[in-house]
Amino acid sequence: MTPEALATTGPIKIIGTGLLGASIGLGLSTRGVEVTLSDVSPTTLALACSVGAGRLAAITDDEPALVVVAAPPDVAGPLVIQALADHPRAVVTDVASVKGIIADEVRAAGADESRYVGSHPMAGREKSGPTAAMADLFAGRPWVMCPGSETDPAALVRVRELAVDLGATPIVMPAEEHDASVALISHVPQVVASLMAAQLADAPEPALGLAGQGLRDVTRIAAGDPGLWTQILAGNAGAVAEVLRGFATDLEPVILGLERLAENWEDPAGLQAIARAIAAGNTGQSGIPGKHGTRQRAYDTVVVLVPDKPGELGRLFAEVGELSINIEDLELEHSPRQPVGLAKLSVLRGSGGQLAAALQEQGWTIAG
Amino acid sequence: MTPEALATTGPIKIIGTGLLGASIGLGLSTRGVEVTLSDVSPTTLALACSVGAGRLAAITDDEPALVVVAAPPDVAGPLVIQALADHPRAVVTDVASVKGIIADEVRAAGADESRYVGSHPMAGREKSGPTAAMADLFAGRPWVMCPGSETDPAALVRVRELAVDLGATPIVMPAEEHDASVALISHVPQVVASLMAAQLADAPEPALGLAGQGLRDVTRIAAGDPGLWTQILAGNAGAVAEVLRGFATDLEPVILGLERLAENWEDPAGLQAIARAIAAGNTGQSGIPGKHGTRQRAYDTVVVLVPDKPGELGRLFAEVGELSINIEDLELEHSPRQPVGLAKLSVLRGSGGQLAAALQEQGWTIAG
Repeated sequence: MTPEALATTGPIKIIGTGLLGASIGLGLSTRGVEVTLSDVSPTTLALACSVGAGRLAAITDDEPALVVVAAPPDVAGPLVIQALADHPRAVVTDVASVKGIIADEVRAAGADESRYVGSHPMAGREKSGPTAAMADLFAGRPWVMCPGSETDPAALVRVRELAVDLGATPIVMPAEEHDASVALISHVPQVVASLMAAQLADAPEPALGLAGQGLRDVTRIAAGDPGLWTQILAGNAGAVAEVLRGFATDLEPVILGLERLAENWEDPAGLQAIARAIAAGNTGQSGIPGKHGTRQRAYDTVVVLVPDKPGELGRLFAEVGELSINIEDLELEHSPRQPVGLAKLSVLRGSGGQLAAALQEQGWTIAG
Repeated sequence: MTPEALATTGPIKIIGTGLLGASIGLGLSTRGVEVTLSDVSPTTLALACSVGAGRLAAITDDEPALVVVAAPPDVAGPLVIQALADHPRAVVTDVASVKGIIADEVRAAGADESRYVGSHPMAGREKSGPTAAMADLFAGRPWVMCPGSETDPAALVRVRELAVDLGATPIVMPAEEHDASVALISHVPQVVASLMAAQLADAPEPALGLAGQGLRDVTRIAAGDPGLWTQILAGNAGAVAEVLRGFATDLEPVILGLERLAENWEDPAGLQAIARAIAAGNTGQSGIPGKHGTRQRAYDTVVVLVPDKPGELGRLFAEVGELSINIEDLELEHSPRQPVGLAKLSVLRGSGGQLAAALQEQGWTIAG
């Protein structure tokens, strides 16, 4: 971490010291900002202190300029309301993954909304808890801020400074738009991946043995924690239900079309229903931004066969590293049941031939 | 390609010289087997010859020992029937991705079923046509064979030899089991990914800007070709419809649960429906074999921050390549809108600390 000029000044109070709270604390502490911590669990709190996220909050502390509530959606609201009352001059934010429901609670409680800015850093890890905290957890991630109609612009600035100081990219949108957006790009994909994976539960072993990279990709996030995801989905239930209803509505004609095709595999209406669904997927998929938020760029790809022997992948990395060609992306594809893998290297359009030739010269088998 | 002892002896006749047919031809030709080619399209046929997949079939040719029909599902059946009639001593296989419907056609035509073995190499590429052919397309891939009740065991042996000679792993299962398996592990995931991606079609740009790796993974295969996938799905419509019906049946209580939660986010029945769906996804996902057909192994993972400047990824590869630690897997995760990426290196359990320390020593920021 290079020393840097920070806009955020302490003391910052963090309420809730799980992965997100402890990572914010760690990120600020390592950058020289004073951080005080509190948590309902003394164990979690002690662990957060021990990883360097901050020190225990005390009654004798100076008033914090900013309070960050880093608690799950179902407890964040009351904690925000309490923090606004306890610290009458502080700006208060929370970092829960749903925003509308918390803003509603704050409003309903008659709390001082001018000092509240809900926010959501789009960062996470497979591990949880303060021991998984990382000062760089937010580096390069979007951090959404959802000011309400009563929010003081200066409060928004303070939260935006926090996001920027932690390396995140601040994005401002209304809470309702945030919730609809994450339903679409995060919560619904989670449900769809889980339901897809669930269909495999009774699959015979030989069927699963045929699984390729496509199935692995579609179901990867289905490994997510049921407790956490139930909370997240419950907190954004309306928006998620709406998108899933659209999914179900689109699914029905596909099933009906397939049932017609099962009787007569040239049934025109059936073929049309399938083709329309696959084509609509093409359109939707092409709109997902690639690297750096740009629309997907077309790269040259070079596919290399990698024998799965110790050191082979390392040798490929070393030899690719020595070439003066910038690798934009790399995917490894595992071949089931066989000791060979495919490494798919993406390079800027026009450099593919050069890369393939250089690797072939070094004895690699180019598969495309 | 090292010279090797082959069980397959020519001449082999390949009917249909798209990606699969031309790749089989190329794989056999480069291994010294005589291959003759035919295709309804003179252009495709000429291209296949020019890439070295074989020579034009002629009336004066010796009788082939094996005929491979490499045509789409909707034309494979008639071509197999014709080949069995034209070459009364040859074994005939096809490589279409659905098997039951073709076997039914062969039986219904009263053709000599003893010499027919339907098969399905689980290999493909994003590109199509003979110019995308690769001699190694089948290396390390499962190649499913579906003998019928009338199939001569010697015919099965001949097709199995073809698969093994091309580097594939032969798997024998009944046509019905094959079709049900690929419905589950390939055709239904395609439909699900396409329908998920289709929900994004009208999404506002800011929502898509929040997209993370999860959405990208779930929807990657939604880029598949509508024409090809319509054919594949139509040819396996019954089995696909059945799995999709199960998916729809599981989806409904999730939507109803979410609709209850939208009214009252602590509704116990709603919470239970969501938790059950996510947990079922955990179970299904954990059954997918990982590398080499083994159940997923637990690795240590080391996550490295990679500034997206020319040469940085190459430098990482070079430095990782020089370490004496075998990298089992690597994933790159792109951060939207920000010039930094995460490289997730997987190593055998126990080596993670050593790798992290070595990289840190060389100035890399370890993110976990």
